[in-house]
Amino acid sequence: MIESKGYAAQSPTSDLAPWTFERRDVGAHDVQIEILFCGVCHSDYHQIKNDWFPGVFPMVPGHEIVGRITQVGDHVKNFKVGDLAGVGCLVDSCQTCANCQQDLEQYCLEGNTQTYNQVGRDGNVTYGGYANNIVVREEFALHVSEKLDLAAVAPLLCAGITTYSPLRYWKVGQGHKLAVLGLGGLGHMAVKWGVAFGAEVTVLSTSPDKEAAARALGAHNFVVTKDEAQVAAVKGSFDFILDTVSAQHDLGMYLSLLATNGTHIIVGAPPKPLDLSAFSLFDGRKSVVGSSIGGIAETQEMLDFAAEHNIVSDIELINFKDINTAYERMLKGDVRYRFVIDIATL
Amino acid sequence: MIESKGYAAQSPTSDLAPWTFERRDVGAHDVQIEILFCGVCHSDYHQIKNDWFPGVFPMVPGHEIVGRITQVGDHVKNFKVGDLAGVGCLVDSCQTCANCQQDLEQYCLEGNTQTYNQVGRDGNVTYGGYANNIVVREEFALHVSEKLDLAAVAPLLCAGITTYSPLRYWKVGQGHKLAVLGLGGLGHMAVKWGVAFGAEVTVLSTSPDKEAAARALGAHNFVVTKDEAQVAAVKGSFDFILDTVSAQHDLGMYLSLLATNGTHIIVGAPPKPLDLSAFSLFDGRKSVVGSSIGGIAETQEMLDFAAEHNIVSDIELINFKDINTAYERMLKGDVRYRFVIDIATL
Repeated sequence: MIESKGYAAQSPTSDLAPWTFERRDVGAHDVQIEILFCGVCHSDYHQIKNDWFPGVFPMVPGHEIVGRITQVGDHVKNFKVGDLAGVGCLVDSCQTCANCQQDLEQYCLEGNTQTYNQVGRDGNVTYGGYANNIVVREEFALHVSEKLDLAAVAPLLCAGITTYSPLRYWKVGQGHKLAVLGLGGLGHMAVKWGVAFGAEVTVLSTSPDKEAAARALGAHNFVVTKDEAQVAAVKGSFDFILDTVSAQHDLGMYLSLLATNGTHIIVGAPPKPLDLSAFSLFDGRKSVVGSSIGGIAETQEMLDFAAEHNIVSDIELINFKDINTAYERMLKGDVRYRFVIDIATL
Repeated sequence: MIESKGYAAQSPTSDLAPWTFERRDVGAHDVQIEILFCGVCHSDYHQIKNDWFPGVFPMVPGHEIVGRITQVGDHVKNFKVGDLAGVGCLVDSCQTCANCQQDLEQYCLEGNTQTYNQVGRDGNVTYGGYANNIVVREEFALHVSEKLDLAAVAPLLCAGITTYSPLRYWKVGQGHKLAVLGLGGLGHMAVKWGVAFGAEVTVLSTSPDKEAAARALGAHNFVVTKDEAQVAAVKGSFDFILDTVSAQHDLGMYLSLLATNGTHIIVGAPPKPLDLSAFSLFDGRKSVVGSSIGGIAETQEMLDFAAEHNIVSDIELINFKDINTAYERMLKGDVRYRFVIDIATL
């Protein structure tokens, strides 16, 4: 076994604190990665607090991982020692079902294995990237360009792919009006992708203070959703809304902003169901859709696109010991736009 | 003005009773139709009871109208006296907005004019097809084949197009598994269209008693949704669910029956919002969509398709005086599958 050091929550009521644990030895198809940076996702907090489902404790969160390969198994083909590598939300899937065969491991029909907080197909608990190393099958490791700021690449592995994938699947681009709802870790990436794909991007926000920041990210328009006149002016205007909000919100109001045949894409996860009126869909043949991260091939495509177009996340790099304070700030929306842990500070 | 006789509700608490009223004279672009048959839609009842919004009383319901042209205006091009004609849910729209220009009058951006229970663009109240005649712009009249049973054609004008349009828009057909939820006026038409379009059609019903009837309509499979084993056997299996239920129901349960990338199409209108969990959409990139009737060109296409494939509604023809009893039976689901009023019994 390989010794790992990281930060773990011992229970849903504990703060994160240093913890030593073991990873499996590097198997024939595995790579071992020395982790350099790990992004802090809102879902890390939801999971250690059991907000969505009962977790597996002790829990080492983190699924926005970048680092360097330190060991490869005998049958590894696509990585060598010294390569940069990333790991996102998935570390395993059946690889044989109809969905896996179509590069949709996120929708593996036998259930995929999440990077942490899960008992994997081998019966072992998975531990995430708030740690100095990780061992994964090479099929679930991603190539990362040496060209980009590595710390700022880390959030692409979840916030990046979660917004990139639906915009690609629903073919959002030139000629489309895209509204982005929520300007956090996911939302700021959605703005960057939307602009890169050629859409006219509007940020919808409750806070007028965010306008300059939204425009700095490339957004073409900004609408304060508490301002009735501003909202009235964009009724029926958007082809797509990308909804990153994980708090309860008024779906019907946002549906009224969609044009005929418009699509409201949900990627944030409010803990309770939203109210959906059939009438709000009838009026303009509208759609409400959901999307979950992305498959491995698409995640690689996104990382390659990011390198080509010089797109990374806007981050605030933190020391490991400040993770609990970072959570407090994240819950208040006080981060532009993603905390990333500098693993060297462990 | 033209004298009309029909049945009206004088208020939301009145039964329907005979009433005499006036239609506008036949204008240059109008046709006058002697109504022969009018279907009884569930929405007729909802509207006279103010279930959805406050109605305009006295109200003459009815938007599944077939009859024969008795007069045409000077500039009418496409109809002549003696032609069969149909009128559905719409009698006017702006005809100039982007949606009208794309044959989507049902989504007219200035608001369309419904066949009854509305103040039209000319300021006059619209009265529907529970009457001996109607006057409409020729653009909103449909051609009806002499080949089909006229009484059984009437429900195509609402129940028919409401189910035909979304199945066409989302390209449901060969190679698709389609589930139809609710086997009433809309549902039985959805089964017929789905079969005609080449889909494998499953009826989902709470009642095992309906299996023989569902199969007689052409359904390939039947699932009793109260039977857990039957439901478990179809989890994750349908490409499309066409949901015609206008009572509250458990959307999440039905979403779990969709395959990856599956689409739940809502055409029934529950009076209160449904619960929509984001997680139920994430798990397989699912969509919930809504669709409202169809445009005029598509309604004509449907009527032509119906004539070509000999598809009509299964109906129970009633005398006018039995309309209130028919409502009582409709509310109990005691009709296979649509009541149609024989206007000659007025």
